[in-house]
Amino acid sequence: MIIDIHGHYTTAPPALEAWRKRQIASLAGGAAPSASELRISDDELRESILVNQLAKMDERGIDLTVFSPRASFMAHHIGDAQTSATWAAINNELCHRVSGLFPDRFVGAAMLPQSPGADPAGCIAELERCVNEYGVVAINLNPDPSGGHWTSPPLTDRHWYPVYEKMVEYDIPAMVHVSTSCNACFHTTGAHYINADTTAFMQLLSGDLFADFPTLKFVIPHGGGAAPYHWGRYRGLAQEMKKPLLQDHLLNNVFFDTCVYHQPGIYLLTRVIPVDNVLFASEMIGAVRGIDPETGHHFDDTRRYIDAANLSPAERHQIYEGNARRVYPRLGAMLDAKGL
Amino acid sequence: MIIDIHGHYTTAPPALEAWRKRQIASLAGGAAPSASELRISDDELRESILVNQLAKMDERGIDLTVFSPRASFMAHHIGDAQTSATWAAINNELCHRVSGLFPDRFVGAAMLPQSPGADPAGCIAELERCVNEYGVVAINLNPDPSGGHWTSPPLTDRHWYPVYEKMVEYDIPAMVHVSTSCNACFHTTGAHYINADTTAFMQLLSGDLFADFPTLKFVIPHGGGAAPYHWGRYRGLAQEMKKPLLQDHLLNNVFFDTCVYHQPGIYLLTRVIPVDNVLFASEMIGAVRGIDPETGHHFDDTRRYIDAANLSPAERHQIYEGNARRVYPRLGAMLDAKGL
Repeated sequence: MIIDIHGHYTTAPPALEAWRKRQIASLAGGAAPSASELRISDDELRESILVNQLAKMDERGIDLTVFSPRASFMAHHIGDAQTSATWAAINNELCHRVSGLFPDRFVGAAMLPQSPGADPAGCIAELERCVNEYGVVAINLNPDPSGGHWTSPPLTDRHWYPVYEKMVEYDIPAMVHVSTSCNACFHTTGAHYINADTTAFMQLLSGDLFADFPTLKFVIPHGGGAAPYHWGRYRGLAQEMKKPLLQDHLLNNVFFDTCVYHQPGIYLLTRVIPVDNVLFASEMIGAVRGIDPETGHHFDDTRRYIDAANLSPAERHQIYEGNARRVYPRLGAMLDAKGL
Repeated sequence: MIIDIHGHYTTAPPALEAWRKRQIASLAGGAAPSASELRISDDELRESILVNQLAKMDERGIDLTVFSPRASFMAHHIGDAQTSATWAAINNELCHRVSGLFPDRFVGAAMLPQSPGADPAGCIAELERCVNEYGVVAINLNPDPSGGHWTSPPLTDRHWYPVYEKMVEYDIPAMVHVSTSCNACFHTTGAHYINADTTAFMQLLSGDLFADFPTLKFVIPHGGGAAPYHWGRYRGLAQEMKKPLLQDHLLNNVFFDTCVYHQPGIYLLTRVIPVDNVLFASEMIGAVRGIDPETGHHFDDTRRYIDAANLSPAERHQIYEGNARRVYPRLGAMLDAKGL
């Protein structure tokens, strides 16, 4: 089977954005809307998926998507921890409902109610709820809830340990994923996303986090930002910092997805990064929705690039399915239980 | 001939750093040291180059290096515009003296006395001095003088136009190069440098700067950050933003160096980016000084990767020499005048 580990609910019914606008407006004064004021029917949810993600999954032969709230809409920089708590709960519930409507095609991953300056321990209640009630198999962790001002400590800081302790307890990985940039220097999907991937990788390289959490797992999206392209630089920096080889220092715990939207990038990724550490993903319908005039196919139709890469059938199976089952153990167990 | 367009004076005699420390100490109160208190003899300069950059240039067959002050030492975030003015003048003079001692091997590029919040117009006097008195052929422009807080406007903002007007007048390119990060999230050479390259590229993609300055030229170092690896993403984003093809939108004005420290990265760079836009560089002796255990050669010995890339002799000549002469017209004229 083919598992896409990186999908967001980018096509939610417009009522969601309308509710969020009311919530944001209330921050300037006035009553905040309650979560129950957002009403989206199952038919609306179904329709928003059927003609979008599900249609493309069927076209491309993708069986299952790990599905989380829209990354750019997380916008943790807006309001305070309470603002984010209400907003995260709404979005996580919507993704849960989608996975309930299409139980063989979508499995949930949770956003966290992060907020700049707030203790990540404040996210644990929502994380527990999403694991225990919704059965999510992963979380998205934003290393920069400020939205491009980078005011939180690096991911190796004890600041983040409450989240890591829960991740280890539940055996769920985190995808390191920022949200909208509110810094004019950083275009959200063209700079901030990719920079955050590179930044997170280098934070992990500089530290020794996995000495404290040997089973902790991170997925760096968007093909690992710049890391695979500059793998020699990173191997060299690790060597200068007297770290072990990257293979030993990071690659038991750090994984890369395949959201790289052209063939040469996928060639590089699959050539440089051990096949155990590459997980299929497309992040469709996302940042780049158009058709590549050079190929006639969608930029984000990453399956074509993987199919064309120089991989053995066994390696391709790992990237499409095997690694996802291993890195997302709750997903693996769920599929095992279904006999899949 | 082989021209390395990206060298910094990373091996300056220790007196330079000692002077800088006194300057920084004076910011807390007390008298600042005067520039004339820094005394470094020609013999000291010669020695610092002979056993370092020049030895490696000879080993690797590099004929000429475009040589600028040490990037991480620019540290524009320290002090104010006056602090940076004194510091830039000292560093530019040292590089000028090096190029005077080895006139066939080094040609200068200037750092600017940037400072967070200061008008870049304040850099023009130093820029003019470096062109007219020192004969520099390029400048280094720091898009983030705050050192990792990204408080300046994007490179497409009119904020930067005074510098661009001078660049056009003198026909000199700018290498977009940040300095030390003072944001704990960003490792200087592992994250901040690479992020800045990606960020600058996306700023230029998002804007229409070259409509205002058709002859303005930027070199994005470190192989363009993440841009070539994610070239499909950038082509797709440009398409969604209704920009022309990247070839027409940016590639008359934006160039990439070859500071990518492993063979697969150089394969990707030379495969994805048109050969007219790739300029040989190594940034030695810089961020990654060690020997790659996988090859037995220095990570930053980028000539080996170019030699091994799938390029015709004519293409290799462009990368090694032809593009540098074209993108750095004052360098081209200087070499022409010497009959080289």
